[in-house]
Amino acid sequence: MARLSARTANLHPSPVRAMLNVAMRPDMISFAGGLPDAESFADLELPAPPRTLLQYGPTEGEPDLRARIAEELIALGLDTSADRVLVLSGSQQGIDLAAKLTVDPGAPIAVESPAYLAALQVFRFFGADLHILDRQNPAAGWGDLPPALAYVTPTFQNPTGHCWTALERTALAAACDAHDVILFEDDPYRDLVYEPVERRPICAQVKQASWIYQGSFSKTVAPGLRLGFLTASEDLFPLLVMLKQAADLHTNRFAQWTVLRFLNDSGRAARMARVVNTYRRKRDLFNDALTRHVGNLASWEVPPGGLFFWLSLKPGTDTAALVERAIARGVLFTAGEHFLAAPGALPAMRLNFSLASPEAAERGLKIIGDLLREG
Amino acid sequence: MARLSARTANLHPSPVRAMLNVAMRPDMISFAGGLPDAESFADLELPAPPRTLLQYGPTEGEPDLRARIAEELIALGLDTSADRVLVLSGSQQGIDLAAKLTVDPGAPIAVESPAYLAALQVFRFFGADLHILDRQNPAAGWGDLPPALAYVTPTFQNPTGHCWTALERTALAAACDAHDVILFEDDPYRDLVYEPVERRPICAQVKQASWIYQGSFSKTVAPGLRLGFLTASEDLFPLLVMLKQAADLHTNRFAQWTVLRFLNDSGRAARMARVVNTYRRKRDLFNDALTRHVGNLASWEVPPGGLFFWLSLKPGTDTAALVERAIARGVLFTAGEHFLAAPGALPAMRLNFSLASPEAAERGLKIIGDLLREG
Repeated sequence: MARLSARTANLHPSPVRAMLNVAMRPDMISFAGGLPDAESFADLELPAPPRTLLQYGPTEGEPDLRARIAEELIALGLDTSADRVLVLSGSQQGIDLAAKLTVDPGAPIAVESPAYLAALQVFRFFGADLHILDRQNPAAGWGDLPPALAYVTPTFQNPTGHCWTALERTALAAACDAHDVILFEDDPYRDLVYEPVERRPICAQVKQASWIYQGSFSKTVAPGLRLGFLTASEDLFPLLVMLKQAADLHTNRFAQWTVLRFLNDSGRAARMARVVNTYRRKRDLFNDALTRHVGNLASWEVPPGGLFFWLSLKPGTDTAALVERAIARGVLFTAGEHFLAAPGALPAMRLNFSLASPEAAERGLKIIGDLLREG
Repeated sequence: MARLSARTANLHPSPVRAMLNVAMRPDMISFAGGLPDAESFADLELPAPPRTLLQYGPTEGEPDLRARIAEELIALGLDTSADRVLVLSGSQQGIDLAAKLTVDPGAPIAVESPAYLAALQVFRFFGADLHILDRQNPAAGWGDLPPALAYVTPTFQNPTGHCWTALERTALAAACDAHDVILFEDDPYRDLVYEPVERRPICAQVKQASWIYQGSFSKTVAPGLRLGFLTASEDLFPLLVMLKQAADLHTNRFAQWTVLRFLNDSGRAARMARVVNTYRRKRDLFNDALTRHVGNLASWEVPPGGLFFWLSLKPGTDTAALVERAIARGVLFTAGEHFLAAPGALPAMRLNFSLASPEAAERGLKIIGDLLREG
């Protein structure tokens, strides 16, 4: 028996990634992942990249891309500059780097519950003691034992689609300042906005505490490129760069070049508007189909942005059995309990509305309605 | 003060990456990094990638690429299959994954000394207690306290250029089998071979122990793509896939597609032969210039492969001061002590011969000879 690290005992397969193989079956209707509609990048120009990008590049990322990202972050109110932008191999990498930076075995880490499951998995892997963050009262319990990190997705959260109010945002920034807690704000969905809502980064309101803010091009450009970015307070930034070096030296340069072209493209705003309109329409059709087929068997809010509906089910619903029965009928979704910070049951399901066609969504939601009715 | 993980105290900037900024000055002659000659990828065709690759892909990598890599690994004698190939975002990532899998704080890890410094940094970051591996007697001390992992670069090692003999390879495989030590073989240089030497992977000789074997396309295709791969024994492979998921979901798909095209290209063998001939010629010219300018001020072996000359200097040479003086004269190299498993002085320098033109190498080595003569 090979001698493995203690943290390896905390290693568990991702239920979403595991389902991707089933999702690949051509007859499957998948509400399980968070995949964009391929239509959203159908019009992206993909010219051949320049040969100069074949050599090693800087760890921090391509200077032009960093400058362009910094402009947008400054426009959001963040206190940053091109020198404080780190290009990531997708924003999942930012979670790995932040966890390496802050999580010792047993360290308290504050997270929402439910929350993005692949973040919870990384924090758990490094041995975090996950504490549930109450957005009504974020500093509850922090007086005795402040967490090393507070990880939040305040804008169109995965899985719930929830968007924090201005008051909730201000309260968390103040709590982090008061208790010297590093704020880690994960913001991959902010541009998929279907209704006017508060979206100002919480990190823009932090005054004393250290912070990390990250975003992704997976939803606005394309996920196969694996491109994300982070910026951070001055104390943390150089450490994150060193961690990035150790993780993969630097990010693929073709992807950086492709995304920079997109950011500088004169048609960008029109393209984003088209993508957002497409998703808003899909969301509305999805909501109609849900209302017809699931109706009073579940409750939900119409998400103001992002890619997911979050359905609360009847107490006692066996979601694991429901997943199995849905797969047998050709439908995939993700059971709510996977997103919990503390193990337990949660009669809820996450449904992605961006990938399936309206026709497939109609068929799939009818099946889910039937299954829920059968109990 | 933000609360950071204990391991953050082990985080130090890479001396090589730090020098890359200085190396970018147009007047600098750099022997410091490990950059390929841009000529080596000047003839690489770079067509526009297909749009289908913009969607999320499988964590393990593109199936066609995995199958192609598996064929080559099987031809090297490794017991593997397409299902046991994991595509990496560069082989640096494999080191991060292997360290997560095996290194607890205080865990003994066996490494060569000198060894690849970015591997030593990762192992140290996770708290490894580095033990020096003696290739004449690899199991020395393992009876009492076998390491969790033995990390080696047996073929054209970075920094020394050394290539292990058949006997040394067999001895390490047997030692890992006898003491149940995971063997981690890092093999990024194997195709840059200038003389016939033993190159059979040690992992191909392991019978009972667990193992990880990794390679890179940074030297044979292009480093800016950030593409590497690993294969591993059956017990470790699924754990490494989960670690890859947590690290960055999957590797950039354009890079995978570009490399697969290269692997399937009918001109590949001819192209590799040209690259190898170019590097052999550069190595020989470098050796001539070294002999003329440095002569008896240092000793070295002509490397049978890889990208580096390793110069042993007069005992007591202050290499840190030498680096400073060289930079002032427009030349960069890497001081030997950075590659040591245990902190200390080492009167040695690593000189990369692949990047600089023969004319620049001539000028740079004359300066290094002058500096050594000045003492």
